[in-house]
Amino acid sequence: MKQYLLSPGPTAVPERVLLRMAAPMIHHRTPQFSAIFAETKAMLEQVYKTSNDALMLSSSGSGAMEAAVMNLCSPGETMIYVNAGKFGERWGKIAAKHGIITVEIKVAWGEAVALADVQAALEAHPEAKALFVQASETSTTTEQPIQAIAALTKDLNTVTVVDAITALGVIDMPMDDWGLDVVISGSQKALMLPPGLATIALSDKAWAMVEASKGCNTFYFDLLTERKNQKKGKDTTAWTPAASLIIGLNEVLKMMLEEGLDNLYARHKVLAAAARAGFQALGMKLVSSSPATSATGAFVPDGVDGAAFVKYLRDEMGVTFAGGQDDLKGKIIRVAHLGYTDVFDVCTTMSAVEIALFKFGHPVQMGAGVAAAQTVLAARFANVV
Amino acid sequence: MKQYLLSPGPTAVPERVLLRMAAPMIHHRTPQFSAIFAETKAMLEQVYKTSNDALMLSSSGSGAMEAAVMNLCSPGETMIYVNAGKFGERWGKIAAKHGIITVEIKVAWGEAVALADVQAALEAHPEAKALFVQASETSTTTEQPIQAIAALTKDLNTVTVVDAITALGVIDMPMDDWGLDVVISGSQKALMLPPGLATIALSDKAWAMVEASKGCNTFYFDLLTERKNQKKGKDTTAWTPAASLIIGLNEVLKMMLEEGLDNLYARHKVLAAAARAGFQALGMKLVSSSPATSATGAFVPDGVDGAAFVKYLRDEMGVTFAGGQDDLKGKIIRVAHLGYTDVFDVCTTMSAVEIALFKFGHPVQMGAGVAAAQTVLAARFANVV
Repeated sequence: MKQYLLSPGPTAVPERVLLRMAAPMIHHRTPQFSAIFAETKAMLEQVYKTSNDALMLSSSGSGAMEAAVMNLCSPGETMIYVNAGKFGERWGKIAAKHGIITVEIKVAWGEAVALADVQAALEAHPEAKALFVQASETSTTTEQPIQAIAALTKDLNTVTVVDAITALGVIDMPMDDWGLDVVISGSQKALMLPPGLATIALSDKAWAMVEASKGCNTFYFDLLTERKNQKKGKDTTAWTPAASLIIGLNEVLKMMLEEGLDNLYARHKVLAAAARAGFQALGMKLVSSSPATSATGAFVPDGVDGAAFVKYLRDEMGVTFAGGQDDLKGKIIRVAHLGYTDVFDVCTTMSAVEIALFKFGHPVQMGAGVAAAQTVLAARFANVV
Repeated sequence: MKQYLLSPGPTAVPERVLLRMAAPMIHHRTPQFSAIFAETKAMLEQVYKTSNDALMLSSSGSGAMEAAVMNLCSPGETMIYVNAGKFGERWGKIAAKHGIITVEIKVAWGEAVALADVQAALEAHPEAKALFVQASETSTTTEQPIQAIAALTKDLNTVTVVDAITALGVIDMPMDDWGLDVVISGSQKALMLPPGLATIALSDKAWAMVEASKGCNTFYFDLLTERKNQKKGKDTTAWTPAASLIIGLNEVLKMMLEEGLDNLYARHKVLAAAARAGFQALGMKLVSSSPATSATGAFVPDGVDGAAFVKYLRDEMGVTFAGGQDDLKGKIIRVAHLGYTDVFDVCTTMSAVEIALFKFGHPVQMGAGVAAAQTVLAARFANVV
């Protein structure tokens, strides 16, 4: 059966990227690889919109999250984190491993954090080294107000660390302009690659903090060592890099810049709006009151087992979405529209959901969700008359 | 120009592995991926020759080296390590990051460690949690007597940790039979993959130590968490795995088992013997008195700049080998014969070295090295009469 990967990570890898990565292996300690590395890094910094270094780490995004914590905070110091879902919760788990004192801002799943709560935590804890937040909390398909949060820490001794794993390359989030101090991403989302490569960039303020910090003990994730090796002119990595993924990233970034970043953001925006319109036309309530641009979550109708629903779509229909986790387990479906996706992926999404609803015995007007999505999606194409 | 990658890592990736990894991406949190994961892990354990778990980590080999240190030793505890080259030295650098007390057994580059020195260190330091050693020290192309070393720690409270990054899948090193407590490997060597995936297996004795140890603080490299997730029946990873490399590893391991492990070891052995014979026929002295099976190092002739020699081979002739590091910089060439290599790769190697010697104005009898290698290599083929 033809397969469609429409989960919020991993996402489909474009054919030209798969083929580029299928080229014969080259040695990573050569001028040949360094030239690719330098070009890739420069393009990555264009996507980050930063004049600082965007570093590549051979790990999953969780490795880069821990790298940020370990390089900024020392055991016994304090950090604040926004826990608005599974990924927010992870900051706390990482901190606990390192004996870092945490101040948790707990947010109901599906909601954006209230700025007043962030402000209150910052005022109550001026000793906090950093505030950690997801730009897009994938478990609840919720976007967080990172620009406003960064503005709150701007004049403080606290830095803002943003997990942008499902946001970088999806929404416009200019790192330098918005004063985001640390921005983390991962390969298997909008960067349209297999998992195994993470990226991280730091502001001058964050680098100064890393330089002044004792930090937590780490050899593999020592960002100062990585910066020294990856800087322009040196163009290498401290440890053996995930070279095939970096070569793939080179191709991905070319695709992104060929499309144009503004066009890319506009595309993601319209796909997300269309998915929301589609679910609402089917009477499926959205999970988030601050819905993400990367993925849309919707509650399955009462009487439908969400876990069985997602499993049926994957195993019987060939369409892989994601279900819910923890409290949302069995209750929601999450569909992605980031990375290598366009108009007809959203039509496929709505069409697959409708057929599955029919198969699960839920009354559904075939085509209703597709039609609502199409009406939004038509804006992607030029007018004829 | 046609390119030949004959460095001791990264090594050439077989075409069928490149193509397998170029298939459309699948989701790593699905029964479909778990089935591949479980099959891969079981085959990997056949290569490790262990009844324990062989775990996969999404990092380079250095990450797995640090994982071993962090999970076995706590700050303030003692470890012993064999420093016989660049990779041996790394154990000390990792330990220093974590405040672990180190006992260094310094070995001249190109030599195997003396068992008496290991014995003396173990006797002087019964408090040492672990002894760290390379099975094959790639920087000097030297094999270490890991079976005998493991025998020395068998009845002690110290475990033997083996970096087998250029040994696993090259030489027969049955983990359980030899009593190796921890064995680490990496994807870009005999496992014939791009870099970015590491593997690690622990004996019962080592697991007991990990369970009893406070260890160093780590979230990403917590081996107990990985074991829980990767164990048979669960068949997943704690954090997002480098899925394309694991799928590639599935194909690689099938190739290795199709060849048969004994045949694979025999192949590597004859290729190494042939390379040694070739260099010796050219009057080039071997770097190691205990030469590795994975790669052969030889001194370039007096008057030839080794760095320029290796660069010429790579940039002008399309053949990528490796040069020397630190004290050996500019003095040696290292050629690999591990992974996806066979008879005619050694002939290519010797032929390329001869032509380069000629180009560098060194008197050389064309074909002399090739001929010496061929004489050894002929054993790879059945006799006609």
